[in-house]
Amino acid sequence: MSKLLLATRNEGKLAELRRILAAGGVEGLEVLGLADVAEFEEIAETGATFEENALLKARAAAEATGLPSVADDSGLVVDALNGMPGVLSARWSGRHGDDEANLELLLAQLADVPQERRGAGFVCAAALVVPGGGETVVHGDWGGEIAWEPRGTNGFGYDPIFLPEGETRTSAELGSAEKDAVSHRGLALRELLPYLHELA
Amino acid sequence: MSKLLLATRNEGKLAELRRILAAGGVEGLEVLGLADVAEFEEIAETGATFEENALLKARAAAEATGLPSVADDSGLVVDALNGMPGVLSARWSGRHGDDEANLELLLAQLADVPQERRGAGFVCAAALVVPGGGETVVHGDWGGEIAWEPRGTNGFGYDPIFLPEGETRTSAELGSAEKDAVSHRGLALRELLPYLHELA
Repeated sequence: MSKLLLATRNEGKLAELRRILAAGGVEGLEVLGLADVAEFEEIAETGATFEENALLKARAAAEATGLPSVADDSGLVVDALNGMPGVLSARWSGRHGDDEANLELLLAQLADVPQERRGAGFVCAAALVVPGGGETVVHGDWGGEIAWEPRGTNGFGYDPIFLPEGETRTSAELGSAEKDAVSHRGLALRELLPYLHELA
Repeated sequence: MSKLLLATRNEGKLAELRRILAAGGVEGLEVLGLADVAEFEEIAETGATFEENALLKARAAAEATGLPSVADDSGLVVDALNGMPGVLSARWSGRHGDDEANLELLLAQLADVPQERRGAGFVCAAALVVPGGGETVVHGDWGGEIAWEPRGTNGFGYDPIFLPEGETRTSAELGSAEKDAVSHRGLALRELLPYLHELA
């Protein structure tokens, strides 16, 4: 069975990619995470754009393992913050990966920002790097607005405070399949399906 | 002696305006702060721009007191944060006016941002509202970059981490007169001098 490395330690992201591959009819491709391969020096996400970070991570993973590697960089872009937290989404509070601190800070920063100026979007760039093959970068956007308080327990990151367009539920209140169908990462990963079919 | 209200409780800002008036040859104008006038309901700084906030504050002060009133709204715009903290500078950490928390958060957010992407500027909009007279809004910009750690004790806000262009000292290491000559608020307030001369 061919192997595909998803350059993440996030089990939620691994499950998501496996669901999307299955739903997309890609069989015969085993999805590994970083925990399944020999350790290598991971790249700091210091790029100025999602694309740059995704590509840096996928290249580092492909080079270190020799496996076709996918990496994503995703984040929340908030209109009232001129598109930030953006590439700094995961460390907005200064503590990398502290989801609760990040979203609490964001809510506090937007405390006086009225509903009509709370527009926001989740953005994903996903890169596929095939050793000896090509590099592909795809995108996905998911529009909505920032809620006034966290709700829901599915998902991670800013999901509990993101209200997708046309929804009364936050993205942490959507079911996994429901979310895959419309989310920024779901859209981006499905863009990769034609390339992943070739690897299977 | 004619009176001018500066809509602030910040003694540093009052001293700064008095220095600038004196240096600009404006005599016979007594500068009062909010602590010197009867209390009135102050306006929350909810505007989307510095101009909007300055004007809202100056109008509210002039209306409540009948005095010619100046208000400023100032902040730090950081390139790597797409121009934020901007109008949210004073409450970037979620705690309004907590200078140390604000600048520590900013440094943490920029921890991986290299020198060449640490460009920033202080921006000031100052509004003068004269009851029965006109409204004037002026601007000042001060370019520079974000330092790697705080230095200096003059000034307030983000002064300890702002390196003005061409300087090795932070703006909290400059003397007051030196700072007035080049700072965003100094520039903006000097733009107001011709209008303030008329009031004296």
